[in-house]
Order: sequence, then structure tokens, then C-alpha cells
Amino acid sequence: MKQLRVGTSTHDYTITIDENIRYDLQKFFTKSYSKILIITDDQVAPLYLDDILAGLQTENVIHTTIPSGEATKSIEYYYQLQTVALENRLDRNSLIIALGGGVIGDLAGFVAATFMRGIDYMQVPTTILAHDSSVGGKVAINHELGKNLIGSFYPPVAVVYDVNMMQTLPENEIRSGYAELVKEAFISDKAFLQEILNKPLSKLTNEELKEHLYKGVKVKAKIVEQDEKEANIRMFLNFGHTLAHAMETSLGYGRITHGESVAVGMLFALHISEQTYNKPLYYDELFDWLQNNGYPLSLFDIPLDNVIQLMKLDKKSLNQHIQMVLLSEIGEPTVEKMEDEQLKKMLQSFKKELTAK
Amino acid sequence: MKQLRVGTSTHDYTITIDENIRYDLQKFFTKSYSKILIITDDQVAPLYLDDILAGLQTENVIHTTIPSGEATKSIEYYYQLQTVALENRLDRNSLIIALGGGVIGDLAGFVAATFMRGIDYMQVPTTILAHDSSVGGKVAINHELGKNLIGSFYPPVAVVYDVNMMQTLPENEIRSGYAELVKEAFISDKAFLQEILNKPLSKLTNEELKEHLYKGVKVKAKIVEQDEKEANIRMFLNFGHTLAHAMETSLGYGRITHGESVAVGMLFALHISEQTYNKPLYYDELFDWLQNNGYPLSLFDIPLDNVIQLMKLDKKSLNQHIQMVLLSEIGEPTVEKMEDEQLKKMLQSFKKELTAK
Repeated sequence: MKQLRVGTSTHDYTITIDENIRYDLQKFFTKSYSKILIITDDQVAPLYLDDILAGLQTENVIHTTIPSGEATKSIEYYYQLQTVALENRLDRNSLIIALGGGVIGDLAGFVAATFMRGIDYMQVPTTILAHDSSVGGKVAINHELGKNLIGSFYPPVAVVYDVNMMQTLPENEIRSGYAELVKEAFISDKAFLQEILNKPLSKLTNEELKEHLYKGVKVKAKIVEQDEKEANIRMFLNFGHTLAHAMETSLGYGRITHGESVAVGMLFALHISEQTYNKPLYYDELFDWLQNNGYPLSLFDIPLDNVIQLMKLDKKSLNQHIQMVLLSEIGEPTVEKMEDEQLKKMLQSFKKELTAK
Repeated sequence: MKQLRVGTSTHDYTITIDENIRYDLQKFFTKSYSKILIITDDQVAPLYLDDILAGLQTENVIHTTIPSGEATKSIEYYYQLQTVALENRLDRNSLIIALGGGVIGDLAGFVAATFMRGIDYMQVPTTILAHDSSVGGKVAINHELGKNLIGSFYPPVAVVYDVNMMQTLPENEIRSGYAELVKEAFISDKAFLQEILNKPLSKLTNEELKEHLYKGVKVKAKIVEQDEKEANIRMFLNFGHTLAHAMETSLGYGRITHGESVAVGMLFALHISEQTYNKPLYYDELFDWLQNNGYPLSLFDIPLDNVIQLMKLDKKSLNQHIQMVLLSEIGEPTVEKMEDEQLKKMLQSFKKELTAK
């Protein structure tokens, strides 16, 4: 069992990573609850809902299943879940369990954050990618005008990570989650990075997955503890994400996974970093590992001017200047303001390099 | 000028009470903002919006006016205001100004609390009643199933109280606000209570209003600082409110003002208190003052069994038991769990006393 304590401005909570702990969630409760509402989606429910229910020895458990996918992170589903909570008489002493990936975590977390001005919620992530959103307390829904624009900072009371649930993940979801782990390695620790890059994803053991998840959440937790409200070094977590967000907006969600676009974004950030700092920074090693693991490595013919315009819309852009997270060393992120012209040149040479390989 | 510093778990802020300070809100900014969005309603806008705009010496000010009244504290208006903020390109460094009474404060505050996970907002209350909601950081919208069921604890960065704006208030709104001031006096300080009860509302000077508002917010701030999340002594602020909420639900909002129902609720709490502690606790003095100032003192023929059922729905009820805030002395609130039977007897004798006078 791997455990990590995360500090926030309101309370501390524990992330537990282990095998088969989904059968005994009650062990991780920090108090007793009047009612428990499990929020999950229609892909996860048939696989794991019964396991969770079996382990909750109380009659006051309600569950609700919504369609899987980003579309449920909407004001309509948000309000519908509030209604479910009220109709089932949840009160201030109730708990919401978010059983699912990042979408369920964000949505159920925001419902909990604002139900009767905030009740407890527990994250039970069912994807590798969700390790990322399970630390940091960011909860949100989407607005028609953009992703995650309505939300709060509201940490869970516990995160319970059962790695056995990762065995049912499709390959592109494993790739998606591992891209964020690779990112956390790049911005923190060369040894961790080499550990991941040394082995193909298909050969991973549960022990290794636990170890990587533990190291990943630790990197994130350390940064988030220092900068909860995203004023400063939390930006380092954006390594690979400036281009990724632009690609996702342009391609529409669903064509490639979040992590797959982050993978391309990291290559781009390394491409700039190697030229800026004039030294090798694992571009080649990452490229090979990504390629061997089946990541789609392409800019998908998105016109480069569009890419630049979309990068400017990023929540982290400043006065219309794109801010890129680069590396001066493995484990040494920096934030650089980039001019449009400079960026365009970099995108052109990056595109050439991608297609040449 | 009266000023009070309020501490919260996230930041401190200042409440300023003075005459004609609406013309210079910028003086109360704690930093510079990229954009400012004023949210107000169609009763307040014609009276005071221009005064506010005149004092903001920046081009980045947008304003939006919504209908006045409780109906705008809805998910629809909430989302619409998020859209206004996004379309006008507010960012994390922007400010929302809530110009209006409690409804505008709650709604605009909740928009600010959740726009891009929280931006600054300033309260500019235009009613006496709003002194109450301007301290404590409670922001919320209503759900079809009940009031204030969706919300956050999210304090403003400043409260700017211009008492001159109170001169346009209708009489029932003055009564409404003063009931909460009387409540704050009852639970804290006999001298403050006598100060208010010694004079009819129609004879109030601006100096007295400033003094009363200052003392009222001070009482509330002191309690809220000790119990931000409503776990404990914050309940004392509920003095008079258990019956008031039941009356409001039964009568529908708008028939009498919030404070007017709190006035009846306080009389009821004093009625029980005097019998419980067997001593005079200003029931008669309050009754006379309320009557002289035109408060409607009646239970409006609501069946007493309904009253009891509605009191149980209160967010502060515990395991279906009604909890009443009583006084053992002026300034000494207590919380007592009441049985249905006991409560019914008290309601019967109270009703008799009300109609006998």
C-alpha cells in the first residue's frame, strides 16, 4: 500500500494507492455520514459499482449513473445531480463518492463543493489520467465558451486508487494517463523519467503502476501545496499543455485523448527547450518511447496560425502573450513568454522534425 | 467613517460604512483589475448605477442589469451571468461588483466564487437587510426544492456601505433590515438593544444608522470569525429565524419581508425564553416597538401543524428535531432541542398572546 498525505488550505487528506481496495471504501472514511451518494457513469457502473456497494455496510447509500463522456460536465447535469442529492435528502453531513475518471471527478466534485455550500466528497478514480485531477482540488464544469470555466478549488476528503480497476482500460486511455506521469517525471526527476521510459506500457506490472502513480501524485501534490490557487509554480504542471489544449480545441474532444495531445505538446516543449538551452533534453528518448507505445505523433494538419491563435486563448496566457513551460534541465522547468513569430518558426521546425522521423 | 476588519480562513477584508462613498469605489480596491463587471438589478440601476460608474476611472467597466427579486437567484440567471462575464473577457484578475440587496449579493457572489474557480468581488449593499448577508461569505442561488441550497462560502474583498443609498428604501424594507439589527442586539448587548428600541424608525438620523449598522456587522463578524462554516455558535444568528423560515415558506416570498417574519420569530423565541428561564426578556418592549413601527405581528392563520412540519425542514434541524435559539439573558443565546408537542403548546399560547394585545 502506498499512501500520501496532501495538505490544503482547508484540510489535509490521504491518497491511498493499492490493489483491490475498492471493496472497502469505508476504511477510508474520516467520519460517519448521514447519507452517501455515489456518482458514476455508464461505462464504469457495470464494471465496478457492485464492488463498491458491497463494501459499504450501510443502508444510506444512493447511486446515480450518467452517460460517460465530457458532455456531462455541463450546467444541465450539474443541476440534475443537485436535484438527485436533494430528492434523496442528502444533508450537510453527507458524502459524495466520485467513481470514475476525470469527468466524473470534476463534475461530482463541483456538485459536492456547492451542495448546501459544500459537503465532503471522495475520489475513486478509475483511470490513470485521473491521478492528475485527483490532486489539487480543482473541480469544474464546462461552459459553452470553454472547458472548466465554472468551478472551485475544493479538495476531496480522501482519494482511493485501486490499481486493479486500471486493467479494464483501453490502450489509448493508458497512453493518456501515462503522458501525465511522464510530464510529472520531466518536471521533477530524471530517475523517475528513466524508470518510465525504460519499459513499454504493455509490460507494466501492478507494482510498477502503483510506484509510478505514487511518484506522479507526489510531484503534483508538492507543487500544489506550495501554490494552491495557481498563482505561480503551479504553472509548471502545464508542461506540454499549451500546445495540447490548442490541439484539443482544434480537433474537437474525442479524436485523440488528452494525454496523447499532451505527449505531442511535450515533444514540442522539448524541441524549443533543446534549442533555447542548446543541449539534449530527452527529445529523442521521449519520441522513441511514444512511438513504440503507439502514441499518434502528429500535428494533424492544423494550420499553424490557428494553433498560435488557440494557444493565446489559454487561461494561463498573459496579456495576449503565450507563456510556455520549458525545461533548462530534466527536473528544472522554466516559464518563458514567447512572441508569435518565434513560436511560428518553432512550430515549423517541429513539424518538419515530426514528419522526418 | 466606520470601518471594521473581518477575518476569514482565506483573507481579511474591510467593511466601510459612510455617507456618499458610492462615488469613489476605487478607493477600496486592494489591487488593480483587468476588467470590472457590475451586476445590479432594475430597481437599483436607475437610482445608483451612474453614481458608481462616475467614480470608476477606468475604461474596463462593464455592467449588466437583471430583474429585481428573488426569482433571479436561479441556475438560469447564474449561467447567464457567467456567459456575460466570459463574453466580456473577464479573466482571473477581474472584479465583480455586486450593487444591490441580498439577492444581488448572493447571486453575484456565487458567480464570482465559481467563475474560473473564483475571482474577487465587492459588495455594495443598497439595503439595510444586506448588512447581514454582506458579512459571513455565504453566497448562493436557490434550487426549485429550496432556498440557498446551491452555494459556497466565499467572502468578498471589500464591503462598501453608503448609507445615503438607504434613503430611497420603502418602509417595509427599512423594517426588514432593522429586524436583523434588533436580532444582533438581542444576542449580544443590552445597551445596543435599548439604543434601537428607544427611537422610532422614522426618526433615525444617518449617524444613528451608521452606528447601528456598524454594531450589527460587528456582532455578526465576531461570530462568523469564530465559526465560519456554521458548525457551532454561528447558529445563534438564527435567533428568530426558525419560525420565520417556516412562515416565509408557507406564505410565499413577497407577502411580508424577511425581516418582518424574523420579527414575529423573535417574539416567539422570547415567548419561549421567558417561560423557560422564568424571567422577563424584553418580550413586551420588543412587541411595543414593533407595533409602533408598523411591523405586521401575526401568524397569518397558518395551521400550527404546518408550521411545525416546516420548521423541521430547516437546514439547521438535526435528525428531525427542531433546534430553537433562545435567550437565557439579553446577550446570552442558547440552543434548545424541542419536541413537537412542547412546540405546539408554545405556538398556541404565543398565538393567544399576539391576538390579545
